[in-house]
Amino acid sequence: MKVTVWNENRHEQTNKKVREVYPEGIHGTISAFLKEAGYETETATLEQPEHGLTEEVLNQTDVLIWWGHVAHHEVTDEIVSRVHQRVLDGMGLIVLHSGHFSKIFKSLMGTTCDLKWREANEKERLWVVAPGHPITEGIGEYIELEKEEMYGEHFDIPTPDELLFVSWFQGGEVFRSGCTFNRGKGKIFYFRPGHETYPTYYNEQIQRVIVNGVKWAAPVEREKPVYGNAKPLEEVPGE
Amino acid sequence: MKVTVWNENRHEQTNKKVREVYPEGIHGTISAFLKEAGYETETATLEQPEHGLTEEVLNQTDVLIWWGHVAHHEVTDEIVSRVHQRVLDGMGLIVLHSGHFSKIFKSLMGTTCDLKWREANEKERLWVVAPGHPITEGIGEYIELEKEEMYGEHFDIPTPDELLFVSWFQGGEVFRSGCTFNRGKGKIFYFRPGHETYPTYYNEQIQRVIVNGVKWAAPVEREKPVYGNAKPLEEVPGE
Amino acid sequence: MKVTVWNENRHEQTNKKVREVYPEGIHGTISAFLKEAGYETETATLEQPEHGLTEEVLNQTDVLIWWGHVAHHEVTDEIVSRVHQRVLDGMGLIVLHSGHFSKIFKSLMGTTCDLKWREANEKERLWVVAPGHPITEGIGEYIELEKEEMYGEHFDIPTPDELLFVSWFQGGEVFRSGCTFNRGKGKIFYFRPGHETYPTYYNEQIQRVIVNGVKWAAPVEREKPVYGNAKPLEEVPGE
Amino acid sequence: MKVTVWNENRHEQTNKKVREVYPEGIHGTISAFLKEAGYETETATLEQPEHGLTEEVLNQTDVLIWWGHVAHHEVTDEIVSRVHQRVLDGMGLIVLHSGHFSKIFKSLMGTTCDLKWREANEKERLWVVAPGHPITEGIGEYIELEKEEMYGEHFDIPTPDELLFVSWFQGGEVFRSGCTFNRGKGKIFYFRPGHETYPTYYNEQIQRVIVNGVKWAAPVEREKPVYGNAKPLEEVPGE
Repeated sequence: MKVTVWNENRHEQTNKKVREVYPEGIHGTISAFLKEAGYETETATLEQPEHGLTEEVLNQTDVLIWWGHVAHHEVTDEIVSRVHQRVLDGMGLIVLHSGHFSKIFKSLMGTTCDLKWREANEKERLWVVAPGHPITEGIGEYIELEKEEMYGEHFDIPTPDELLFVSWFQGGEVFRSGCTFNRGKGKIFYFRPGHETYPTYYNEQIQRVIVNGVKWAAPVEREKPVYGNAKPLEEVPGE
Repeated sequence: MKVTVWNENRHEQTNKKVREVYPEGIHGTISAFLKEAGYETETATLEQPEHGLTEEVLNQTDVLIWWGHVAHHEVTDEIVSRVHQRVLDGMGLIVLHSGHFSKIFKSLMGTTCDLKWREANEKERLWVVAPGHPITEGIGEYIELEKEEMYGEHFDIPTPDELLFVSWFQGGEVFRSGCTFNRGKGKIFYFRPGHETYPTYYNEQIQRVIVNGVKWAAPVEREKPVYGNAKPLEEVPGE
Repeated sequence: MKVTVWNENRHEQTNKKVREVYPEGIHGTISAFLKEAGYETETATLEQPEHGLTEEVLNQTDVLIWWGHVAHHEVTDEIVSRVHQRVLDGMGLIVLHSGHFSKIFKSLMGTTCDLKWREANEKERLWVVAPGHPITEGIGEYIELEKEEMYGEHFDIPTPDELLFVSWFQGGEVFRSGCTFNRGKGKIFYFRPGHETYPTYYNEQIQRVIVNGVKWAAPVEREKPVYGNAKPLEEVPGE
Repeated sequence: MKVTVWNENRHEQTNKKVREVYPEGIHGTISAFLKEAGYETETATLEQPEHGLTEEVLNQTDVLIWWGHVAHHEVTDEIVSRVHQRVLDGMGLIVLHSGHFSKIFKSLMGTTCDLKWREANEKERLWVVAPGHPITEGIGEYIELEKEEMYGEHFDIPTPDELLFVSWFQGGEVFRSGCTFNRGKGKIFYFRPGHETYPTYYNEQIQRVIVNGVKWAAPVEREKPVYGNAKPLEEVPGE
């Protein structure tokens, strides 16, 4: 299982507070716990050539993790298109937090992916609503995060194939925080938490969800379906 | 209820056989039975300015019906984008047959929308798998079409929100022929039959499904959700 | 459209506070606003012969509304079975609040339908997560109820076919408060609010949701599917 | 991973043809290939005390496979209830072929589970409609079975959580042949093929699907959700 953790890596350069929380970058923290979980893990960032997502890298990636926020528009359409194609071909994709507004997520969803938001150091409680799902394995009834950014409904996404977590926020909102989607042969998991100024990705329960998510999103081995003009498999009298 | 029937209207110009089957164009036939069903119905075609889909037309359209095939690429991105936005804002969309490969359907789905196909004058039998759904109201156990083009699985779409019809084809394939999707406030119905050389849209059961589909896809009246930065509804201590 | 509002009608007899809030019984209040909405509406209660749900009554009922709480076990299996069959045959069913633990709901779901609960006069905010759905038509972004009983996740139901509302509770929980399910030809809508000591069913937004729900749950007119041994529709060589 | 293969084992006693196809019983054939796939596998049959499904056996079973046909009514309600509870607690359940009419499947579905059927030695082709799902891993575009019993729509089940296979039959019908459902913490997979007079369970692709199904249906390790009266997690002013 080969995982690539992609991070826009911009807040870490410009905001001292973020650098203090994530001295190795958000990608560094995420790749560290994924390695510990036994996955072969590399990182890639926006400033690298081809944003670090060359054909070679993507072809060897089983699951791609995506964190972006202020620089969504700097990701070139060519790379978005390449990632999109790889997802349809079976690569798993885990979109974190503000990645809801990334070009890749929006193009896979077909909707605006808009939502309500607020930075107010408020408490979030992610309730498990799918207790038999492999992504919630090992998680208690809920995950509590003392301080997080709020994301609130309506979250403008297609109906998720599976709803795993629903968040409660102190300020009065709720949010569908863990959602899965199938696109082509690829499996997609959107997971809400992870604002850059909070140590969310050090939380062991959050780490467990992401580790589970990678396992769940792994491609299956099978031939690509055949499309286009097809000979009949049975005799067609009218032909 | 205002319906706009959009047709690429190209086969009708270039193929005598199609012109014989649909002397008023596919859009003419469809709009005729929708009017009979009591809907205020207009048509629009590719060759018109802005493809007949001006802001004014779209803003007054409750449900848009889409038939296209050989000229998908001639539909400008600007118009596709406009239609896309209107769907998210609540306009219903019914995509027929080869419209599966239209820019608008693909951008709403986020997948290739590819499939198998074959023109062999073969029998199609559309089985109802959702007998309680309003779109299948008044339809028997199945609709039989003596001659149709074959579309076969795998159909590369996201998991439909609802699966209404599954087709059996003489040549040995099956197809998810009636599928609904939600995108934003808009409801989308994909309905498979309707190859240009067959009189499919004169079939009363097919007409009934499309009439039902228009009723189902009608927008609901409600305010658009509010997105963006939001004040808390409850006191947030950490703020 | 004929609606029957069924109420266990027990709290109204034994609890003065409930009688003060609902002097005509919960069924009386609900049937009153449904009549005002234009539906032909009758009521039925537990203490009546056959619980008021004779074959005749059920056969003439398009949508049945169900409120029960302390006397679920007093509803006879025979009547539960009769209602169950009518739902499969197409009668709509709207299950309110503590009806989650009714025999009829549990038998249709196949799960325990268990949940967390608390009576603490706390605020509930029901957020709309399906803004294009006919049941949420005319409803704002959320419905706020100053005082309600809390129901919390995990709610042990099958994955709903559609999730319409998610509740936020002051005490820190969330709940999938508006859920639809299909069973046979019947449509089922579970709607959470309505504890007997609060004037919830006088709330105009709550009334609107129930009125919308009745319209949505109406049976479609079509023949019952045929089951059992079937002659082939095509020649089967091996036969 | 511990698998228990349950078989009614009646046709094997009464029908010479079945005995010739499955000399060790259908359960013997299925358990043999599951053992080969590396699962610790036991069998249980109707005629054993408690139908071989004692508390002890079920508590140690991760995934239960169910084949039954002519003796569904001989399975006692007590055992059905016990299996039902174990599924809700997380045990995986794979229901094969005529098990669609078993008490356990019907009680988990809440519907009649009725369908059309025909024994005419006809060809079945199971098309994969979910190419990214772990249960279809390693399977080609379709599985072809030269002779099988026909099952046809309408199949009276709740909307499946996931639809994996759709069958084409020579006689003109289609069927949703591979369906998953979640109930409580348990995962359920219904898989259509396997009439007793055909050597279906020797087919390697069919075996692969069942092996994949067992892996998919395995319980997740997590604590059972807490239900019932709950203290607030946040201060509730009105309390």
